[in-house]
Amino acid sequence: MTLAAFCAALADQLPANAIVTDPGDIAPWLTDWRGRWTGTSPLLLQPSTTEEVAVIVRAAEAHGVGLVPQGGNSSMVGGATPPADGSAVLLSLRRLNRLRSLDSDHAVAEAGVILDTLQQAAAGEGARFPLDLGARGSATVGGLAATNAGGTQVLRFGTMRAQVLGMESVLSGGLVHDSLGGLKKDNRGVSLDHLLIGAEGTLGIITALRLRLVPGAGQRGAAWVGVANPHHALALLRCLEAATDTIEGFELIPDVSLTRVLEHIPQTRAPLTTNAPWHVLIEAVTGAAEEPPQQLLERLLGESTDLLTDAVIAQSDAQTEALWRLRHSISEAERAAGPAAQHDISLPIDRVPGFLLDEARLIERRFPGTKASGYGHLGDGNVHFHVRAPAGAPPGWADSAEGKAVSAFVHDLVTAAGGSISAEHGIGQMKKDELARLAPPARMQALRAIKAAMDPHGVFNPGKLV
Amino acid sequence: MTLAAFCAALADQLPANAIVTDPGDIAPWLTDWRGRWTGTSPLLLQPSTTEEVAVIVRAAEAHGVGLVPQGGNSSMVGGATPPADGSAVLLSLRRLNRLRSLDSDHAVAEAGVILDTLQQAAAGEGARFPLDLGARGSATVGGLAATNAGGTQVLRFGTMRAQVLGMESVLSGGLVHDSLGGLKKDNRGVSLDHLLIGAEGTLGIITALRLRLVPGAGQRGAAWVGVANPHHALALLRCLEAATDTIEGFELIPDVSLTRVLEHIPQTRAPLTTNAPWHVLIEAVTGAAEEPPQQLLERLLGESTDLLTDAVIAQSDAQTEALWRLRHSISEAERAAGPAAQHDISLPIDRVPGFLLDEARLIERRFPGTKASGYGHLGDGNVHFHVRAPAGAPPGWADSAEGKAVSAFVHDLVTAAGGSISAEHGIGQMKKDELARLAPPARMQALRAIKAAMDPHGVFNPGKLV
Repeated sequence: MTLAAFCAALADQLPANAIVTDPGDIAPWLTDWRGRWTGTSPLLLQPSTTEEVAVIVRAAEAHGVGLVPQGGNSSMVGGATPPADGSAVLLSLRRLNRLRSLDSDHAVAEAGVILDTLQQAAAGEGARFPLDLGARGSATVGGLAATNAGGTQVLRFGTMRAQVLGMESVLSGGLVHDSLGGLKKDNRGVSLDHLLIGAEGTLGIITALRLRLVPGAGQRGAAWVGVANPHHALALLRCLEAATDTIEGFELIPDVSLTRVLEHIPQTRAPLTTNAPWHVLIEAVTGAAEEPPQQLLERLLGESTDLLTDAVIAQSDAQTEALWRLRHSISEAERAAGPAAQHDISLPIDRVPGFLLDEARLIERRFPGTKASGYGHLGDGNVHFHVRAPAGAPPGWADSAEGKAVSAFVHDLVTAAGGSISAEHGIGQMKKDELARLAPPARMQALRAIKAAMDPHGVFNPGKLV
Repeated sequence: MTLAAFCAALADQLPANAIVTDPGDIAPWLTDWRGRWTGTSPLLLQPSTTEEVAVIVRAAEAHGVGLVPQGGNSSMVGGATPPADGSAVLLSLRRLNRLRSLDSDHAVAEAGVILDTLQQAAAGEGARFPLDLGARGSATVGGLAATNAGGTQVLRFGTMRAQVLGMESVLSGGLVHDSLGGLKKDNRGVSLDHLLIGAEGTLGIITALRLRLVPGAGQRGAAWVGVANPHHALALLRCLEAATDTIEGFELIPDVSLTRVLEHIPQTRAPLTTNAPWHVLIEAVTGAAEEPPQQLLERLLGESTDLLTDAVIAQSDAQTEALWRLRHSISEAERAAGPAAQHDISLPIDRVPGFLLDEARLIERRFPGTKASGYGHLGDGNVHFHVRAPAGAPPGWADSAEGKAVSAFVHDLVTAAGGSISAEHGIGQMKKDELARLAPPARMQALRAIKAAMDPHGVFNPGKLV
């Protein structure tokens, strides 16, 4: 049997603790963290060196066994969940978790290093790893790179792609690509690093990364602002960007989302005393020698009062955290409020306000009883766009025929507006069919050709992306 | 005949002025600007729209005719010169040269827009396109992207890759990829933009680019500094980088290169009154509201006097230009001084000083009579490393057996030091064999697989890169 021969080959070459066969130990990793996808895997491989990953890749290709790379298992699109038919095995990178080097401007971290661990190590050097997101306690840097993760600091620092200075990866044949030396200029053809970023583990296995660090945060400040509509929010962002390069977060929140948070999340309270149809959470981070962020925000917001209905500036770190807690609780509050079809979309930034107003109403008219709203990273053109089910819909509504029709309609509108059906979550298995349906022929032809070229034996994360 | 059928197919679908058959009109483009490579091409195609490029690609694939994309014909590695056997035709992008849109933070430029044109258009918007190099009057943005060009501002702004916000390109089948909308976040699999950057036209034809602009330069200032050795130069760079983010140029120059400039280039004079074995040209650019660069440089250099032997700060734009003229004349002066084997190499930055001292002496011992020296972009780890021929060597020495042995030895040393044999010039036809000899198996396997996947008919810039 193929799997038996695969296991025998590995048992000869890997330490015993790199091969887990107890179903009880494997089970927790077979379902994604939100419980939306479940697969099967007869064993779980957990190498602790790059050479062990190479051994596994060679054996997988020899025996035709798929490998599903998994870091923190925090994919939003089923990207790290194995297929149901048992044709692939889990390849956990969590034991490949050494920080190989660290100084004030870069870290070399193995794929299994957890984001929070890296952030804390950077802080120990007086530096900062400039990417942050809710799953920081479980997401690994390898997964973040494989999915080109975004988060709340993209506005100033870019996505994961902008943080990667070099990479080590295992490609077909078990060949190791290594650009960890971090050459600033290297024009020896196509960049393999950029090829693997965003490929979701379908072209090879990322084993280590050279990552940039930036100087440590001097002072953080936050403001909560009420605005009449998303157009005013965007105009406010443009004003702030013209005046300062210290804005790190600019999160747009419709009042309906804030209301849900206040209803469903304990110990939250409205930041403003007046009502507003839309809200913005702004974060500014300034260097030690610069104008303090509270003062900066007060001054700049004071110059833009025509764009605001009200504003409050956090006067302490605790107040800043309380404002961010409102933002980070939206997802949980939305879940508590009932079933909804969720979409991680991006648009040309100038199109976002119109989409949140006009296209949202179009969707509600097309699917009576639904309520459409979006919140998120306005400065990146990225909104998390939720369409709430009609009253009385069952919990699994998003996966029902109507839920799927809603999502297809949303994706059609996004595509027509020149946007992307996956801004930061990736494609995984969740959006694979929609990608194939909507991506231009040039993109699909290229993605398929590259997949076949880089993974001739079809072992890298089968069933994902293309 | 294949070519005749190709021509007939094109004549049916392209306007007459897009097809040039007069050998006299074709001849100027068959030889690279330095006169090192000459090819043949029975015709020159010069489309003026993306659709015309798509027509050409489809016809080329149908009839098995290679296409050699050419912008400003300023490749340093024969990347835009057709093969000698007449199996391919020139595809000039120079008529595809509209600036489709322009505002203060981005431009959408067709591939044939010349760098200088873009720079001036940006200046008209109070902005700057933050990439500059000597060939600005002929190099096109399409060529700059296809080769991931560098230049003198990489230290602060990165290579061409960092300037590209979106791309339009024609891929196999004449399919058009279009990301000109400039989504800040788009995770629909591998980035085709990043795949084509640095691919040297071997995977598809870039037809337009969305490029970032930065705020216009406030004030430019320059200093010329004498240092005892490259280690001190690097230490000085680190001090400056810790104190300011306004350093845009940091060019290391050995005294032997300066001496050649003063000998061979009219109307040049030594910037310092004292002798120094090594020199550094520093440029700082500050915003209108910031400390003037002259004052900034004077203050920061005053804090680093232990690293300098002498320093002078330009007091006017004319003086700044005069200092840069010394730097930009090195290449011409080196040519005038006699034959040399030239190498565009990069190293981990910390390895550069040692390479310029120790490896240079190793080369001179291995090849008696040669003199090895390097100058260039220290902050990028990129030096132009010249090995001067022994006295009395003929003009074509670099292509002789000894010249080639020298280059192979240099490339071996660079590879052993973890560096790249092409920092910013690319591979083209010049370094194709050396790439195949020295690149790790993982890289060569991936480059060849991707080439075969993206160019199944072998029409895109045949004979280059891989």
